[in-house]
Amino acid sequence: MLMSYFADIPSIAFEGTESRNPLAYRFYDADREVLGKSMRDHLRWAVCYWHTFAWPGHDIFGAGVFERPWKPGEPVTAEHAQIKLDAAFDMFAKLGAPFYCFHDVDAMADHDDTTSYSRELDAIVGKMEGKIAETGVNLLWGTANLFSHPRYAAGAATNPDPDVFAWAAHQVRSMLEATNHLGGENYVLWGGREGYDTILNTNLGHELDQLGRFMNMVVEHKHKIGFDGPILIEPKPHEPTKHQYDRDTATVYGFLKRYGLEDEVKVNIEANHATLAGNSFEHEIATANALGIMGSIDINRGDPQNGWDTDQFPNNVPDLTPVLYYIIQGGGFKTGGFNFDAKVRRQSVDAEDLFHAHIGGVDVLSRALLAAASIIEEGQLDQFVSDRYSGWNEAFGQDVLSGKITLEQAANHAVENNLQPSVRSGRQEFLENLISRHS
Amino acid sequence: MLMSYFADIPSIAFEGTESRNPLAYRFYDADREVLGKSMRDHLRWAVCYWHTFAWPGHDIFGAGVFERPWKPGEPVTAEHAQIKLDAAFDMFAKLGAPFYCFHDVDAMADHDDTTSYSRELDAIVGKMEGKIAETGVNLLWGTANLFSHPRYAAGAATNPDPDVFAWAAHQVRSMLEATNHLGGENYVLWGGREGYDTILNTNLGHELDQLGRFMNMVVEHKHKIGFDGPILIEPKPHEPTKHQYDRDTATVYGFLKRYGLEDEVKVNIEANHATLAGNSFEHEIATANALGIMGSIDINRGDPQNGWDTDQFPNNVPDLTPVLYYIIQGGGFKTGGFNFDAKVRRQSVDAEDLFHAHIGGVDVLSRALLAAASIIEEGQLDQFVSDRYSGWNEAFGQDVLSGKITLEQAANHAVENNLQPSVRSGRQEFLENLISRHS
Amino acid sequence: MLMSYFADIPSIAFEGTESRNPLAYRFYDADREVLGKSMRDHLRWAVCYWHTFAWPGHDIFGAGVFERPWKPGEPVTAEHAQIKLDAAFDMFAKLGAPFYCFHDVDAMADHDDTTSYSRELDAIVGKMEGKIAETGVNLLWGTANLFSHPRYAAGAATNPDPDVFAWAAHQVRSMLEATNHLGGENYVLWGGREGYDTILNTNLGHELDQLGRFMNMVVEHKHKIGFDGPILIEPKPHEPTKHQYDRDTATVYGFLKRYGLEDEVKVNIEANHATLAGNSFEHEIATANALGIMGSIDINRGDPQNGWDTDQFPNNVPDLTPVLYYIIQGGGFKTGGFNFDAKVRRQSVDAEDLFHAHIGGVDVLSRALLAAASIIEEGQLDQFVSDRYSGWNEAFGQDVLSGKITLEQAANHAVENNLQPSVRSGRQEFLENLISRHS
Amino acid sequence: MLMSYFADIPSIAFEGTESRNPLAYRFYDADREVLGKSMRDHLRWAVCYWHTFAWPGHDIFGAGVFERPWKPGEPVTAEHAQIKLDAAFDMFAKLGAPFYCFHDVDAMADHDDTTSYSRELDAIVGKMEGKIAETGVNLLWGTANLFSHPRYAAGAATNPDPDVFAWAAHQVRSMLEATNHLGGENYVLWGGREGYDTILNTNLGHELDQLGRFMNMVVEHKHKIGFDGPILIEPKPHEPTKHQYDRDTATVYGFLKRYGLEDEVKVNIEANHATLAGNSFEHEIATANALGIMGSIDINRGDPQNGWDTDQFPNNVPDLTPVLYYIIQGGGFKTGGFNFDAKVRRQSVDAEDLFHAHIGGVDVLSRALLAAASIIEEGQLDQFVSDRYSGWNEAFGQDVLSGKITLEQAANHAVENNLQPSVRSGRQEFLENLISRHS
Ligand SMILES: [Co+2]
Ligand SMILES: [Co+2]
Ligand SMILES: [Co+2]
Ligand SMILES: [Co+2]
Ligand SMILES: [Co+2]
Ligand SMILES: [Co+2]
Ligand SMILES: [Co+2]
Ligand SMILES: [Co+2]
Repeated sequence: MLMSYFADIPSIAFEGTESRNPLAYRFYDADREVLGKSMRDHLRWAVCYWHTFAWPGHDIFGAGVFERPWKPGEPVTAEHAQIKLDAAFDMFAKLGAPFYCFHDVDAMADHDDTTSYSRELDAIVGKMEGKIAETGVNLLWGTANLFSHPRYAAGAATNPDPDVFAWAAHQVRSMLEATNHLGGENYVLWGGREGYDTILNTNLGHELDQLGRFMNMVVEHKHKIGFDGPILIEPKPHEPTKHQYDRDTATVYGFLKRYGLEDEVKVNIEANHATLAGNSFEHEIATANALGIMGSIDINRGDPQNGWDTDQFPNNVPDLTPVLYYIIQGGGFKTGGFNFDAKVRRQSVDAEDLFHAHIGGVDVLSRALLAAASIIEEGQLDQFVSDRYSGWNEAFGQDVLSGKITLEQAANHAVENNLQPSVRSGRQEFLENLISRHS
Repeated sequence: MLMSYFADIPSIAFEGTESRNPLAYRFYDADREVLGKSMRDHLRWAVCYWHTFAWPGHDIFGAGVFERPWKPGEPVTAEHAQIKLDAAFDMFAKLGAPFYCFHDVDAMADHDDTTSYSRELDAIVGKMEGKIAETGVNLLWGTANLFSHPRYAAGAATNPDPDVFAWAAHQVRSMLEATNHLGGENYVLWGGREGYDTILNTNLGHELDQLGRFMNMVVEHKHKIGFDGPILIEPKPHEPTKHQYDRDTATVYGFLKRYGLEDEVKVNIEANHATLAGNSFEHEIATANALGIMGSIDINRGDPQNGWDTDQFPNNVPDLTPVLYYIIQGGGFKTGGFNFDAKVRRQSVDAEDLFHAHIGGVDVLSRALLAAASIIEEGQLDQFVSDRYSGWNEAFGQDVLSGKITLEQAANHAVENNLQPSVRSGRQEFLENLISRHS
Repeated sequence: MLMSYFADIPSIAFEGTESRNPLAYRFYDADREVLGKSMRDHLRWAVCYWHTFAWPGHDIFGAGVFERPWKPGEPVTAEHAQIKLDAAFDMFAKLGAPFYCFHDVDAMADHDDTTSYSRELDAIVGKMEGKIAETGVNLLWGTANLFSHPRYAAGAATNPDPDVFAWAAHQVRSMLEATNHLGGENYVLWGGREGYDTILNTNLGHELDQLGRFMNMVVEHKHKIGFDGPILIEPKPHEPTKHQYDRDTATVYGFLKRYGLEDEVKVNIEANHATLAGNSFEHEIATANALGIMGSIDINRGDPQNGWDTDQFPNNVPDLTPVLYYIIQGGGFKTGGFNFDAKVRRQSVDAEDLFHAHIGGVDVLSRALLAAASIIEEGQLDQFVSDRYSGWNEAFGQDVLSGKITLEQAANHAVENNLQPSVRSGRQEFLENLISRHS
Repeated sequence: MLMSYFADIPSIAFEGTESRNPLAYRFYDADREVLGKSMRDHLRWAVCYWHTFAWPGHDIFGAGVFERPWKPGEPVTAEHAQIKLDAAFDMFAKLGAPFYCFHDVDAMADHDDTTSYSRELDAIVGKMEGKIAETGVNLLWGTANLFSHPRYAAGAATNPDPDVFAWAAHQVRSMLEATNHLGGENYVLWGGREGYDTILNTNLGHELDQLGRFMNMVVEHKHKIGFDGPILIEPKPHEPTKHQYDRDTATVYGFLKRYGLEDEVKVNIEANHATLAGNSFEHEIATANALGIMGSIDINRGDPQNGWDTDQFPNNVPDLTPVLYYIIQGGGFKTGGFNFDAKVRRQSVDAEDLFHAHIGGVDVLSRALLAAASIIEEGQLDQFVSDRYSGWNEAFGQDVLSGKITLEQAANHAVENNLQPSVRSGRQEFLENLISRHS
């Protein structure tokens, strides 16, 4: 093993809020107990392989700029895959990351066909198994990349060509088994090209049925191999496609209900995808909670002035405080966690920039966790919301909710009591101040 | 009856494409047969009461500017309601509109309580019945305004106060019955405030359950009174709320599935709401077709540079050609139609402006209808799409779709055949040229 | 004088960060010295009259909901104007606001024509003078409302009708003089309808010339009457118009240069207008600093998911930290300040909500001020930026900037030295962590 | 010379509106006279080199998909550059394109340093000169790519490193001279990275001064070498940067005024950049006309639901009709033209797709030209606008515009005449119908 790319970076320790060391945690104290659980167990955070180890620092207007020993952006030899793997787990370990995530092609050497795909995937998975054992950094989730190869230009499961569907099945089957083998806690599908570039050439209903069938096949296979983590769909509204079918949490829910999957599949919510879809991040989480499909989080942020997926590291505690609050309210992560699906900016070319990014992100999550815990311990917010709906605990409200009352009876209730309901303050500014006070 | 506000406006006739008379139809020839049906029966268009007769021409930064004899924006007396009704049906008739739409409060005199609400609603509905008989202009759909009165500030069915739910039940029950009585073809619910201003004070799951119960009550009442038109939900993502639960067609579908309503309720898709939700208008229609919940259309347009509901009249034939194409592909309107949920700009203060707006809108729809019909008659577009998916008609594809094949078998199919699917052109530019050629 | 609407609200005191009293400041300690100046003098904050005292709580889909003794939304009698004035200054004083802002029509009784306009304006200005003397709450800026009255439907200075221009001149002349009389520190023009609803009926060049002439007339009058505060233009991209000429700071700068006003007129930057224009708030401030036209701030926030001017109270310290940083870097406010051009949400119907809103806003600004001061005292950020450009202090860079070098010479410099500049890290994540550490 | 990539594509002829041949023009009849000029001379359209010949069909989520003999996306040998050049001019000629455009690196072989840059650029320019002579396809404009190479990650002229500025000078000097040598009619600068990724590390004023100096150097060099075409700046608000200084036409105008360039530099307006900046395309043109800086057009379209630069081919005649109208109103193109800065979708992998795209684009422009000419010949729109402002031709209006009248005098004019201006209809819907009637 060569000297690590990160040889000059120390292991990152908790130093407390007074520290000005940029290579230290100021809030993330992994073993600190918060609401009866360690911060590590609350956050269950992961480093993603792709942005940090597979992306060469290109954008649509410019070439790759990152000079790494594993040569991102160039053809991947087995040797480069090894260098990358070593560097990746060195970084994970130095950060003290409990988890990581990867796509098949992030980690493996290049392949030409289904056979070499399997060979190269098996090779890297075997080595990864050793790394997991060595470092204790576990797999939060695995996934197959069904969008980068030219064959997927018109989609994977929703491709008009069933041969592509078969290829996708091969990759997902393989990565689902690899994830199981590596002890991964979830399996994710992001349908990056499961949508259309133009509706004019698209049979939307046919494609939805293809996708519905594919998801059912994945679920069936999961049970067959005994993988006990959940299958997660990651919603996104568009990009690279003009429109992606898994637009947002509510849309995915409708899809799951349509294809009988609502008890089997949950969502992996990405912050930047939420906002691209016109929803707030916290809305997506509260919605997933309400619909019973909350799974895991891709934590990052978008740029409020830029209309594409910037995948930046989170940096705003008050914005994330409601996010942590709703996650805890929903019972906290079971198999899920916070995967940093985030990349350093193209100009952040140094090894240390990768550390600044993750350290900052982890500390921001930690502060938001502490803020959310403080709100929960205080109890005022929760109480306010309960009180606001307390009228529904009385007879009429209960009869409505339980289905005892018809529209006519409800209408008569208004007439007979000559109801003149007045506006009650929603106290939005008071509640925003409350969030602010804790964050 | 006073002299009509529209006394100087002639009845609008079809004069053909060479006409330069701005008060004539150039494309809308109501009885002309297109694909075996009259243009009137294809379009089933409606004038809406609210924008034209109830809106005073104010915006959030300025006062009302419209000087009408029925005094929009001022308290509505029975006399003003009558003047308004006369003017409305005069206008509908002069336009040759087959349909109109209204909210309870658009047409009725003011009320103080549930009792006077019923009295005033009954009074105007009685008069309206006469107008329908007299003019032959029919009711496309009725709806209750559950968002303008202060009581609805925190929502109607989703209000934290069950008394407000009861009031909403009273209005909807009354308007559903009125719609039935008037021979209306659909009943619409737009949940303008069924959402939240801040998620902080909101129990999202509770509110969804309230709304689910409300919708079921409406459906039950519909059956009870023998109303045979569909119940339609009109999606919108936000405005006036920060977030509205009925975000878009796919979201509404998930809601319907959750509350067992998918066979009872359809969508009334508004163009401007579609684009505010980040979807194209045609996407919403194709989605509703695919999900089996296509109901009716609120036809208008948004401004691509302005992020609110501008409700402008449609003016772009190529944009609407795919819309008409998908409507016809979905079987055309059954009970639905094109309701002009559109308002003249605030500076368009004259009576003739209301006519320019509707004439332009009807002609644009007519041209788009002719273009769509021409595409359908040619058959090239439909053929292209069929051919694109034709691989799915072969054995492997059929086995996938019918559920015969497992993920493993599909994967093996790829491996055993050493599949190397190549990219086939999606021909987007060719298809866009095709649309352009017909429109 | 009646008992004040705010009789139950105590004067708001600084109680420190441990306080959980929602009617207290936790960070705003007016006399506390920060970077050599009191917090009061740094922030120079103002309450605006319009949102709190003139807006009835309506939106475009619903009626007013606020029950106030001065009856917002109804015709304004002299008596109501008096009640409103009393309540306003009671509120300003209880909040300890150093400043307020108002439009002519916010405060005065209704008028029919130019003569009654002057009479009613004079009447209220006279009373206001007494209130200022009594409370010590000063006028940050005055402005004339040139957008709400129907006459301004097609603009004020840019109206196609020169009579409207004359009316606008009357209002601005009057309010400029009133502002001068009241000791106001700035005079603001927001061209809410200085733009167009449709470009089709618009002579853009003509309208710009009208506006250029109007602004010059205002500047000339300012000098004539001896008003020594600056004239400020408040940029906004659109709403209520489809397009407003004063789109953003850079656009206003071009306008000022075109009409020779760049030394006379500055900008009043509103946070929500910045983001509606597709710029970050801090970008607008840094740009105004760079162009030498930084004047004052309308402090509020928009909703990231809603595309209109929501004018919410600020609630996010890390977002505002760069804003305060750039304001201080630019030398701090001279005549400007932070005007809360912000309104409570429509459901926040109680008197106390107005206090929660302002208290929260002031505290958020205070925290951001403390964070910015801490960054400045540390010096690391400033140093980083200086270092980044330090190459420009050497010979070649200096020769370029001073204009000594031609394109050819600069090119030759590259060739002769065979320059191969490498990418240096921009350290974005490190710098974001730095902001986070201080805020 | 190998057999051309486009060997199977015929030369594209005008066949008239009845033609259903997808490889024919239906509206573009190059020599047809419209308003006294041929369609060719009105449109002056160009094919761009980059999208069609340099882009490999990748996007940020997927690899290149285009299989071309010149191997886009791979290192460019002199041989590949030659194959590409042959193919490019073959395509230009078959389309009958009067013009083309290119960046230095689009056409040349790879280089390592300033010396090899010059060698390779000279080599290809020499060959291109022959191609121009051979085909009669002329250079609309040249430009240097100052954004793709890693050295430009932090900008070109605005780079914190003056060495990068020198490199940029070398490229621009070289391409300006090459453009002059090839008889190019304009020289364009698009500052793709002249902006920032984070304002935190940016000295905005310093960067603007760098850019101002650079532009002056370019203008001076242009005069020195006797290039008589204009220098054009292409505005864009962002992407790849978070913020680009040349945001839109009005912003560029302010920049030009600041650095004394307003008589030397004009704008190259791109449709998709206009809409990304929150402006309509026609707004940008009307603004450039009004400010006297209209230069040339990059014709394409964005996707209304996608927030990035999709650079699609135009396909909407009514949308482009006002664009053509304002171009003709502004006197038509002098040196400018319509450059198709547009790319086929990633799935449009075939040679014929490139032709469908350009044919469709040219025909849409042609139809919009015919529509605009028809509007101009009719004269109604122009007359309407003149009439709307006719009040300004009378004494008071003239005195205002000529600067004879003070604010006080204008105010007195309102008072003395007791002006009560009423709202006149802006006739927006009527005018939209007018556009629709012609398009
Ligand atoms: Co993700
Ligand atoms: Co993302
Ligand atoms: Co609607
Ligand atoms: Co609408
Ligand atoms: Co403001
Ligand atoms: Co605002
Ligand atoms: Co361009
Ligand atoms: Co572009």
